[in-house]
Amino acid sequence: MGGQYSAQVYITLRPSVLDPAGAAVQVGLVNLGYDMVSQVRIGKYIQLTLEAPSLELAHREVDRACSQLLANPVIEDYRFDLTAS
Amino acid sequence: MGGQYSAQVYITLRPSVLDPAGAAVQVGLVNLGYDMVSQVRIGKYIQLTLEAPSLELAHREVDRACSQLLANPVIEDYRFDLTAS
Repeated sequence: MGGQYSAQVYITLRPSVLDPAGAAVQVGLVNLGYDMVSQVRIGKYIQLTLEAPSLELAHREVDRACSQLLANPVIEDYRFDLTAS
Repeated sequence: MGGQYSAQVYITLRPSVLDPAGAAVQVGLVNLGYDMVSQVRIGKYIQLTLEAPSLELAHREVDRACSQLLANPVIEDYRFDLTAS
């Protein structure tokens, strides 16, 4: 099943890491009247398009790319979905 | 079903909008040896926690918050998943 794959990568701050940008957005929402919003955490959503000989190899490459460049493993977690496209 | 809800919001640049940060990450990946990656688009992944009287009302509030503050509708699209938590 070689061909083109599409990966959706979700990068989130680890739960123990403070998110000042998220806290600022939460205050902004409350100030706009959305006072039911109690927490906001901001992460990244990265869409990759890649060629690979198989789904398995595509999975391995995306996982390596996430840990080596896309996410900072000290403060961030990542997960991803991968589909043939 | 009043109570606490969790929303996962995915904000992406519209397909017609250039993504220089994504292009820079793509070049970075190629330079690291990931030359099978042909395109990178960077968006935001926002997790909201909110209280609402019902799933329907929570859905309406999150949709309004996205269009009013979280996304820039001129250059960005958004979608979200909502679950009781």
